[in-house]
Amino acid sequence: MNLPSKILEEAVEQLSSLPGVGKRSALRYALFLMNADEPKVRDLSEALLRLKTHLHHCRYCHNVSDTEVCPICSSEKRQKNIICVVENVQDVMAVENTQQYRGLYHVLGGVISPIDGIGVSDLEIASLIHRVQTGDPAPVEEVILALPTTMEGDTTNYYINKQLHPLGVKVTTLARGVAVGDSLEYADEITLGRSIMHRIPFES
Amino acid sequence: MNLPSKILEEAVEQLSSLPGVGKRSALRYALFLMNADEPKVRDLSEALLRLKTHLHHCRYCHNVSDTEVCPICSSEKRQKNIICVVENVQDVMAVENTQQYRGLYHVLGGVISPIDGIGVSDLEIASLIHRVQTGDPAPVEEVILALPTTMEGDTTNYYINKQLHPLGVKVTTLARGVAVGDSLEYADEITLGRSIMHRIPFES
Repeated sequence: MNLPSKILEEAVEQLSSLPGVGKRSALRYALFLMNADEPKVRDLSEALLRLKTHLHHCRYCHNVSDTEVCPICSSEKRQKNIICVVENVQDVMAVENTQQYRGLYHVLGGVISPIDGIGVSDLEIASLIHRVQTGDPAPVEEVILALPTTMEGDTTNYYINKQLHPLGVKVTTLARGVAVGDSLEYADEITLGRSIMHRIPFES
Repeated sequence: MNLPSKILEEAVEQLSSLPGVGKRSALRYALFLMNADEPKVRDLSEALLRLKTHLHHCRYCHNVSDTEVCPICSSEKRQKNIICVVENVQDVMAVENTQQYRGLYHVLGGVISPIDGIGVSDLEIASLIHRVQTGDPAPVEEVILALPTTMEGDTTNYYINKQLHPLGVKVTTLARGVAVGDSLEYADEITLGRSIMHRIPFES
């Protein structure tokens, strides 16, 4: 792309480094900002910088937080003896949106993936084991593994379970099955198979 | 969306004001930046701000430019007596990419659109007429109208032509027709009709 200005080119270059943003979209964003009011652009620019300078990870669950301990970990209303282990921040939000879970979380920041060069030491696994071992901030009775059902997720589940087993904590995983509202006809075999295998008593 | 942090929420809010960016994409961008290196985020933040603080519009053609007069208007190699009138900066880039045009440009910054509240005074039309009238920076012999073939584009063409007519300058418009490589079968009737009406001598 032949841009008429170095400043525009630099902005397009930077914007197109965002995930899923190509040069064309980046140019569209840059021209939009060029024509926007200056305070608006200043607000955006500062909001992005604050992501690096002011945003923390909770010292216990490693979820993003404005404070050293996140609102979930410090809430009096949460059940502190259950930890739900998830891959990333979006997964915490997904579980929170169900309003069905009142325990705490532990955000790994990824799953074990040798192909991508992500090993145990790149993830918050040691800190999870430490939480269970020391009972800091609260004694843990159950760890729910809510990682994706991929080869990498399964490997991570397996590794964490092996580490937790000697500590005598209960380890559970999410129920998998046909989604609510889905017809059996269109469910894949593995999902439907699991739904049958882990069938539950009918509630009347 | 229930975000775990005010700082993250602010960044998502700002990013989702970009054209075509929803909350989900904005969150993806924000989390990406949160995990990126600080100098990278600082570079992005500053590049965006520079779009407002350092970027100019060329005083003659109103294309974006790092300098008061853009490289095209100040180039010795361009044919200065022809002006191609376009809607926006992207259109200049599209014409430049053809490498078929050696004249100058005039960027209107939009087209006349009463529904969107865009009138003649919101566009760089007066400055175009002024360029032709005064011959500053160079006398003009031909104005090529390269605006979109929409109701708004046609209205703008009509208005500009009416203003330019008394000045005795030649006014032309782009040839419209079936695109190179397209089959007639799939061309729309209006385009194919124009291709036939404005047929040209066969070059052997």
